[in-house]
Amino acid sequence: MGTIAFAVSGAMVAIEKRMDVFGVIVLALLTAVGGGMVRDVLAGITPPVTLCNITDFVLAMLTAALVSWLYSAGWVSHRGKRHIIWLYNICDTIGLASFTITGMLTGLSHENGNPYLLPVLLGVITAVGGGILRDIMAQRMPVVLYKDIYATASLVGALISCLLYPYIGLPGMAWLCFVIVVGLRFSALYYGWHLFHPRPNRFR
Amino acid sequence: MGTIAFAVSGAMVAIEKRMDVFGVIVLALLTAVGGGMVRDVLAGITPPVTLCNITDFVLAMLTAALVSWLYSAGWVSHRGKRHIIWLYNICDTIGLASFTITGMLTGLSHENGNPYLLPVLLGVITAVGGGILRDIMAQRMPVVLYKDIYATASLVGALISCLLYPYIGLPGMAWLCFVIVVGLRFSALYYGWHLFHPRPNRFR
Amino acid sequence: MGTIAFAVSGAMVAIEKRMDVFGVIVLALLTAVGGGMVRDVLAGITPPVTLCNITDFVLAMLTAALVSWLYSAGWVSHRGKRHIIWLYNICDTIGLASFTITGMLTGLSHENGNPYLLPVLLGVITAVGGGILRDIMAQRMPVVLYKDIYATASLVGALISCLLYPYIGLPGMAWLCFVIVVGLRFSALYYGWHLFHPRPNRFR
Repeated sequence: MGTIAFAVSGAMVAIEKRMDVFGVIVLALLTAVGGGMVRDVLAGITPPVTLCNITDFVLAMLTAALVSWLYSAGWVSHRGKRHIIWLYNICDTIGLASFTITGMLTGLSHENGNPYLLPVLLGVITAVGGGILRDIMAQRMPVVLYKDIYATASLVGALISCLLYPYIGLPGMAWLCFVIVVGLRFSALYYGWHLFHPRPNRFR
Repeated sequence: MGTIAFAVSGAMVAIEKRMDVFGVIVLALLTAVGGGMVRDVLAGITPPVTLCNITDFVLAMLTAALVSWLYSAGWVSHRGKRHIIWLYNICDTIGLASFTITGMLTGLSHENGNPYLLPVLLGVITAVGGGILRDIMAQRMPVVLYKDIYATASLVGALISCLLYPYIGLPGMAWLCFVIVVGLRFSALYYGWHLFHPRPNRFR
Repeated sequence: MGTIAFAVSGAMVAIEKRMDVFGVIVLALLTAVGGGMVRDVLAGITPPVTLCNITDFVLAMLTAALVSWLYSAGWVSHRGKRHIIWLYNICDTIGLASFTITGMLTGLSHENGNPYLLPVLLGVITAVGGGILRDIMAQRMPVVLYKDIYATASLVGALISCLLYPYIGLPGMAWLCFVIVVGLRFSALYYGWHLFHPRPNRFR
């Protein structure tokens, strides 16, 4: 579900930027598997497992084709978008949470240095890396850097569950992380929370 | 020849974006060896062989210097460009085909998971990765994502020759890939083929 | 000191681009540890040592918080900037020189191919990689590609000290590199040196 939601967002950005079918498929793939790819390269797992797993590829490609067809057929109107946006948000948030968890697990299997830093970092990178690669390829400022509580939900979930990991074990950690990420993300969406923006001084 | 053509395209983009000599050399290098570098990092070959091979570096640097000098001397006019553009396209297409083949060979030497996915992916990444890095550094939307049959030629060539690999052996695969990529690319240039662009709905 | 100066530049770019607090921290971190991260991935040191070292992270985060607070409090005026700019340049140049040296040391510990190419490349990549990642994330053309003698100072220092390495030993190499980088950078700042820009022909 997470893979599909991420592929949908990649394909939509690509179409809005007027890319061709190849670009749409590349962006859908990159958004879906890019975070996991960066995580594996950083963790020294080469070739990255995501590049050896054909299921994700086929899913992302089918999604890209479906989104392209829906757009071209004119079925994506502003109203339609608002109707499906909650469905999309649910899939996307589940993706965010599960990608955070897989990233943390990869980090926990390494024994270097600080026991909290690497799992938390890899968790957040897995969750938001695909979206950042998508935005860089599409020449947009990465959305996670200025908007919404998104990466922050992933970060808080990873941090808290990682700190409590010695007391609650692996399944407890995964569930705790899932609950925190989903809870924070939906609270933020529902109440319209945003992070503080430091303002450039107007008298500069 | 491929390295030189890729370096020329990097240097030209850099000059058009008004970079200094350092920037021109970096973009020429990155376009020429960037695809191979990304391939090696993904395949776990570190340090990447392209970073240990001085020939490519010297070639790319000489090319960058030559292109800079031609531009500054005013020898690159619109008419001159049209005269040499076929020569450039021939070198570029040969580069595209040979980079695809080297990427596939790297992928075939790994034994993980699906036997077709990794060679095809690494072939395409080697072929177009340098150009994508060049465009990202130069703040342009990556050209392969919205224009021409370029990455698609590499993809089709890699896919078909990879599927037929068990029947035709290594040399057969390399030649088949070369013929398909060059044939597709020149047909596309000659007949002006483009990929389908999914259109954003105008009533959004 | 280098880490702090690099984090300051990342945080300032992020604030100017109106990112939120998460974005400011990410850019500060990426600028400070990004070059070392790319170096380690290219050299096959995974997970990168910079991702396992909490000191740099805490430093970069505190710096990001401090810069955000100074901006929001309106203490960063144009005049203030000019007053502290020399302090910033000193820290930044020391960072440039020491990052170049650590990159070269990583390159020297590998035994592949040409003995000069890899250390020089990794030195320059460590020194300027963080700044390039910062600019790509902030949707700016990487500053090192078109402005100032910055990467060039790192390159010249790395090249000369690497060529003389067999005669002067490791400490001599590090000091020589430091002196050359700092000397070149400050001369360039003081005398306003810039690299030659090849001009696109106006009659194109």
